[in-house]
Amino acid sequence: MTGRDCSIANALAVVGERWSLLVLREATLGVRRFDQFARNTGASRDILAARLKTLVAAGVLRRVRYTDRPPRHEYVLTESGRALRPVLMALMEWGNNYATEGEPPTAWRHECGAEFHPEMVCSSCGTHADETNLQAVRVGRVH
Amino acid sequence: MTGRDCSIANALAVVGERWSLLVLREATLGVRRFDQFARNTGASRDILAARLKTLVAAGVLRRVRYTDRPPRHEYVLTESGRALRPVLMALMEWGNNYATEGEPPTAWRHECGAEFHPEMVCSSCGTHADETNLQAVRVGRVH
Repeated sequence: MTGRDCSIANALAVVGERWSLLVLREATLGVRRFDQFARNTGASRDILAARLKTLVAAGVLRRVRYTDRPPRHEYVLTESGRALRPVLMALMEWGNNYATEGEPPTAWRHECGAEFHPEMVCSSCGTHADETNLQAVRVGRVH
Repeated sequence: MTGRDCSIANALAVVGERWSLLVLREATLGVRRFDQFARNTGASRDILAARLKTLVAAGVLRRVRYTDRPPRHEYVLTESGRALRPVLMALMEWGNNYATEGEPPTAWRHECGAEFHPEMVCSSCGTHADETNLQAVRVGRVH
Protein backbone atom coordinates (compact mmCIF):
# COMPACT_ATOMS: atom_id res chain seq x y z
CA MET A 1 0.00 0.00 0.00
CA THR A 2 1.29 3.46 -0.84
CA GLY A 3 0.61 6.68 1.02
CA ARG A 4 1.20 7.42 4.67
CA ASP A 5 1.38 4.85 7.48
CA CYS A 6 -1.72 5.87 9.36
CA SER A 7 -4.34 4.52 11.72
CA ILE A 8 -7.02 6.60 9.98
CA ALA A 9 -6.23 4.73 6.75
CA ASN A 10 -6.24 1.43 8.66
CA ALA A 11 -9.60 2.26 10.24
CA LEU A 12 -11.03 3.22 6.84
CA ALA A 13 -9.88 -0.11 5.41
CA VAL A 14 -12.42 -1.66 7.82
CA VAL A 15 -15.23 0.90 8.07
CA GLY A 16 -14.43 3.46 5.37
CA GLU A 17 -17.34 2.69 3.17
CA ARG A 18 -20.67 4.45 3.33
CA TRP A 19 -22.80 1.30 3.79
CA SER A 20 -20.56 -0.09 6.50
CA LEU A 21 -20.97 3.00 8.63
CA LEU A 22 -24.73 3.07 8.01
CA VAL A 23 -24.96 -0.58 9.11
CA LEU A 24 -23.07 0.35 12.28
CA ARG A 25 -25.42 3.30 12.82
CA GLU A 26 -28.36 0.89 12.71
CA ALA A 27 -26.62 -1.55 15.05
CA THR A 28 -26.14 1.36 17.45
CA LEU A 29 -29.91 1.97 17.25
CA GLY A 30 -30.51 -1.67 18.20
CA VAL A 31 -31.06 -3.27 14.79
CA ARG A 32 -29.75 -6.85 14.49
CA ARG A 33 -31.36 -8.48 11.48
CA PHE A 34 -30.53 -8.53 7.79
CA ASP A 35 -33.93 -7.38 6.49
CA GLN A 36 -34.03 -4.46 8.88
CA PHE A 37 -30.47 -3.39 8.00
CA ALA A 38 -31.46 -3.52 4.32
CA ARG A 39 -34.61 -1.48 4.80
CA ASN A 40 -33.12 1.13 7.14
CA THR A 41 -29.91 1.75 5.21
CA GLY A 42 -31.28 1.44 1.68
CA ALA A 43 -28.35 -0.82 0.73
CA SER A 44 -28.96 -3.51 -1.88
CA ARG A 45 -29.00 -7.05 -0.44
CA ASP A 46 -25.82 -8.03 -2.28
CA ILE A 47 -23.85 -5.06 -1.02
CA LEU A 48 -25.26 -5.46 2.47
CA ALA A 49 -24.28 -9.15 2.59
CA ALA A 50 -20.74 -8.28 1.50
CA ARG A 51 -20.41 -5.46 4.06
CA LEU A 52 -21.73 -7.60 6.91
CA LYS A 53 -19.23 -10.29 5.99
CA THR A 54 -16.37 -7.78 6.07
CA LEU A 55 -17.51 -6.30 9.39
CA VAL A 56 -17.78 -9.77 10.97
CA ALA A 57 -14.35 -10.77 9.61
CA ALA A 58 -12.90 -7.56 11.07
CA GLY A 59 -14.43 -8.30 14.47
CA VAL A 60 -16.70 -5.25 14.51
CA LEU A 61 -19.91 -7.32 14.42
CA ARG A 62 -20.54 -10.83 15.73
CA ARG A 63 -22.85 -13.20 13.83
CA VAL A 64 -25.11 -15.04 16.25
CA ARG A 65 -27.60 -17.82 15.42
CA TYR A 66 -30.94 -17.02 17.01
CA THR A 67 -33.01 -19.90 15.69
CA ASP A 68 -32.07 -23.34 14.36
CA ARG A 69 -35.05 -24.24 12.18
CA PRO A 70 -34.68 -22.59 9.85
CA PRO A 71 -31.12 -21.45 10.67
CA ARG A 72 -31.24 -17.66 11.14
CA HIS A 73 -28.57 -15.25 12.26
CA GLU A 74 -28.41 -11.79 13.65
CA TYR A 75 -25.55 -9.32 14.00
CA VAL A 76 -24.49 -7.70 17.24
CA LEU A 77 -21.81 -5.12 17.98
CA THR A 78 -18.61 -6.38 19.57
CA GLU A 79 -16.53 -4.27 21.93
CA SER A 80 -14.62 -2.99 18.89
CA GLY A 81 -17.93 -2.13 17.22
CA ARG A 82 -19.19 -0.27 20.27
CA ALA A 83 -15.90 1.65 20.32
CA LEU A 84 -16.90 3.25 17.00
CA ARG A 85 -19.58 5.31 18.75
CA PRO A 86 -17.42 8.48 18.83
CA VAL A 87 -16.86 8.19 15.06
CA LEU A 88 -20.60 7.93 14.40
CA MET A 89 -21.47 10.74 16.81
CA ALA A 90 -18.80 13.03 15.37
CA LEU A 91 -20.16 12.39 11.86
CA MET A 92 -23.71 13.03 13.06
CA GLU A 93 -22.75 16.31 14.72
CA TRP A 94 -20.86 17.49 11.66
CA GLY A 95 -23.74 16.42 9.41
CA ASN A 96 -26.24 18.29 11.60
CA ASN A 97 -24.15 21.44 11.38
CA TYR A 98 -22.90 21.33 7.80
CA ALA A 99 -24.79 18.78 5.69
CA THR A 100 -28.42 18.70 6.86
CA GLU A 101 -31.00 21.42 6.29
CA GLY A 102 -33.50 22.02 9.03
CA GLU A 103 -33.89 20.09 12.25
CA PRO A 104 -31.56 17.15 12.97
CA PRO A 105 -33.45 13.97 11.98
CA THR A 106 -32.07 12.04 14.96
CA ALA A 107 -31.49 13.31 18.49
CA TRP A 108 -29.87 11.75 21.55
CA ARG A 109 -30.12 12.63 25.21
CA HIS A 110 -27.27 12.33 27.69
CA GLU A 111 -27.99 11.03 31.18
CA CYS A 112 -27.46 14.58 32.49
CA GLY A 113 -30.77 15.43 30.81
CA ALA A 114 -29.39 17.63 28.02
CA GLU A 115 -29.86 16.96 24.32
CA PHE A 116 -26.56 15.35 23.46
CA HIS A 117 -23.90 17.13 21.46
CA PRO A 118 -20.49 15.46 21.41
CA GLU A 119 -17.43 17.44 22.38
CA MET A 120 -13.88 16.21 21.91
CA VAL A 121 -11.67 16.64 24.95
CA CYS A 122 -8.21 15.44 25.94
CA SER A 123 -8.68 12.21 27.91
CA SER A 124 -5.81 13.22 30.18
CA CYS A 125 -6.83 16.73 31.31
CA GLY A 126 -10.49 16.73 30.25
CA THR A 127 -10.34 20.08 28.48
CA HIS A 128 -11.48 20.93 24.97
CA ALA A 129 -9.29 19.81 22.08
CA ASP A 130 -9.15 21.41 18.64
CA GLU A 131 -6.64 22.60 16.06
CA THR A 132 -5.54 25.50 18.27
CA ASN A 133 -4.21 23.26 21.05
CA LEU A 134 -3.10 20.07 19.31
CA GLN A 135 0.31 19.51 17.83
CA ALA A 136 1.56 16.55 15.79
CA VAL A 137 4.63 15.13 17.54
CA ARG A 138 5.12 12.22 15.16
CA VAL A 139 3.65 11.48 11.74
CA GLY A 140 3.55 8.21 9.87
CA ARG A 141 6.05 7.64 7.12
CA VAL A 142 4.99 8.09 3.47
CA HIS A 143 5.79 5.14 1.20
CA MET B 1 -32.76 8.41 -1.59
CA THR B 2 -33.98 5.42 0.37
CA GLY B 3 -33.00 4.49 3.89
CA ARG B 4 -33.20 6.59 7.01
CA ASP B 5 -33.22 10.41 7.16
CA CYS B 6 -29.92 10.89 8.89
CA SER B 7 -27.13 13.41 9.31
CA ILE B 8 -24.55 10.60 9.32
CA ALA B 9 -25.72 9.64 5.82
CA ASN B 10 -25.66 13.30 4.79
CA ALA B 11 -22.13 13.71 6.17
CA LEU B 12 -21.00 10.57 4.34
CA ALA B 13 -22.42 11.93 1.08
CA VAL B 14 -19.71 14.62 1.42
CA VAL B 15 -16.80 12.90 3.14
CA GLY B 16 -17.76 9.21 3.15
CA GLU B 17 -15.11 8.07 0.81
CA ARG B 18 -11.70 6.81 1.82
CA TRP B 19 -9.68 9.25 -0.29
CA SER B 20 -11.69 12.26 0.81
CA LEU B 21 -10.94 11.59 4.45
CA LEU B 22 -7.27 10.95 3.70
CA VAL B 23 -7.09 14.29 1.85
CA LEU B 24 -8.61 15.96 4.90
CA ARG B 25 -6.10 14.18 7.14
CA GLU B 26 -3.29 15.67 5.06
CA ALA B 27 -4.88 19.13 5.12
CA THR B 28 -5.00 18.81 8.91
CA LEU B 29 -1.25 18.07 8.84
CA GLY B 30 -0.71 21.28 6.84
CA VAL B 31 -0.57 19.96 3.29
CA ARG B 32 -2.06 22.31 0.67
CA ARG B 33 -0.81 21.24 -2.74
CA PHE B 34 -2.00 18.67 -5.26
CA ASP B 35 1.29 16.80 -5.68
CA GLN B 36 1.76 16.46 -1.96
CA PHE B 37 -1.82 15.23 -1.46
CA ALA B 38 -1.22 12.66 -4.21
CA ARG B 39 2.03 11.43 -2.73
CA ASN B 40 0.90 11.34 0.90
CA THR B 41 -2.45 9.65 0.32
CA GLY B 42 -1.45 7.29 -2.50
CA ALA B 43 -4.55 8.33 -4.48
CA SER B 44 -4.30 8.34 -8.26
CA ARG B 45 -4.25 11.83 -9.78
CA ASP B 46 -7.64 11.34 -11.46
CA ILE B 47 -9.36 10.26 -8.26
CA LEU B 48 -7.62 12.96 -6.27
CA ALA B 49 -8.74 15.68 -8.71
CA ALA B 50 -12.33 14.44 -8.50
CA ARG B 51 -12.29 14.29 -4.68
CA LEU B 52 -10.79 17.77 -4.36
CA LYS B 53 -13.49 19.10 -6.66
CA THR B 54 -16.22 17.52 -4.53
CA LEU B 55 -14.69 18.80 -1.29
CA VAL B 56 -14.41 22.34 -2.69
CA ALA B 57 -18.01 22.21 -4.00
CA ALA B 58 -19.17 21.06 -0.56
CA GLY B 59 -17.34 23.93 1.13
CA VAL B 60 -14.95 21.73 3.10
CA LEU B 61 -11.85 22.98 1.26
CA ARG B 62 -11.26 26.35 -0.38
CA ARG B 63 -9.25 26.58 -3.62
CA VAL B 64 -6.82 29.49 -3.48
CA ARG B 65 -4.54 30.73 -6.25
CA TYR B 66 -1.04 31.15 -4.90
CA THR B 67 0.77 32.16 -8.06
CA ASP B 68 -0.44 33.69 -11.32
CA ARG B 69 2.26 32.66 -13.80
CA PRO B 70 1.70 29.83 -14.22
CA PRO B 71 -1.68 29.77 -12.48
CA ARG B 72 -1.36 27.42 -9.49
CA HIS B 73 -3.81 26.65 -6.73
CA GLU B 74 -3.69 25.21 -3.29
CA TYR B 75 -6.39 23.86 -1.01
CA VAL B 76 -7.05 25.07 2.50
CA LEU B 77 -9.52 23.90 5.11
CA THR B 78 -12.61 26.06 5.64
CA GLU B 79 -14.38 26.33 8.97
CA SER B 80 -16.51 23.35 7.96
CA GLY B 81 -13.34 21.41 7.09
CA ARG B 82 -11.72 22.24 10.42
CA ALA B 83 -14.90 21.06 12.13
CA LEU B 84 -14.18 17.54 10.84
CA ARG B 85 -11.25 17.24 13.27
CA PRO B 86 -13.25 15.15 15.79
CA VAL B 87 -14.19 12.69 13.01
CA LEU B 88 -10.54 12.26 12.00
CA MET B 89 -9.33 11.96 15.59
CA ALA B 90 -12.04 9.44 16.48
CA LEU B 91 -11.05 7.34 13.45
CA MET B 92 -7.37 7.60 14.41
CA GLU B 93 -8.03 6.52 17.99
CA TRP B 94 -10.17 3.59 16.88
CA GLY B 95 -7.57 2.62 14.28
CA ASN B 96 -4.79 2.77 16.87
CA ASN B 97 -6.76 0.50 19.18
CA TYR B 98 -8.35 -1.92 16.73
CA ALA B 99 -6.80 -1.73 13.27
CA THR B 100 -3.07 -0.98 13.67
CA GLU B 101 -0.46 -3.40 14.97
CA GLY B 102 2.33 -1.98 17.07
CA GLU B 103 2.95 1.65 17.88
CA PRO B 104 0.59 4.33 16.50
CA PRO B 105 2.23 5.78 13.36
CA THR B 106 1.08 9.30 14.19
CA ALA B 107 0.89 10.95 17.61
CA TRP B 108 -0.48 14.28 18.79
CA ARG B 109 0.17 16.25 21.94
CA HIS B 110 -2.43 18.35 23.73
CA GLU B 111 -1.42 21.73 25.14
CA CYS B 112 -1.67 20.20 28.63
CA GLY B 113 1.48 18.26 27.74
CA ALA B 114 -0.07 14.79 27.51
CA GLU B 115 0.00 12.60 24.44
CA PHE B 116 -3.43 13.26 23.00
CA HIS B 117 -6.20 10.69 23.15
CA PRO B 118 -9.66 11.98 22.26
CA GLU B 119 -12.53 11.40 24.63
CA MET B 120 -16.16 12.07 23.77
CA VAL B 121 -18.04 14.02 26.41
CA CYS B 122 -21.42 15.71 26.58
CA SER B 123 -20.90 19.36 25.61
CA SER B 124 -23.49 20.40 28.18
CA CYS B 125 -22.21 18.71 31.37
CA GLY B 126 -18.68 17.78 30.26
CA THR B 127 -18.85 14.18 31.45
CA HIS B 128 -18.05 11.04 29.50
CA ALA B 129 -20.56 9.86 26.91
CA ASP B 130 -20.96 6.29 25.69
CA GLU B 131 -23.68 3.74 24.97
CA THR B 132 -24.43 3.33 28.69
CA ASN B 133 -25.57 6.94 29.16
CA LEU B 134 -26.97 7.97 25.77
CA GLN B 135 -30.53 7.44 24.67
CA ALA B 136 -32.10 8.12 21.28
CA VAL B 137 -35.02 10.48 21.79
CA ARG B 138 -35.89 10.84 18.11
CA VAL B 139 -34.78 8.87 15.06
CA GLY B 140 -35.00 9.83 11.41
CA ARG B 141 -37.79 8.36 9.34
CA VAL B 142 -37.07 5.42 7.03
CA HIS B 143 -38.21 5.89 3.41
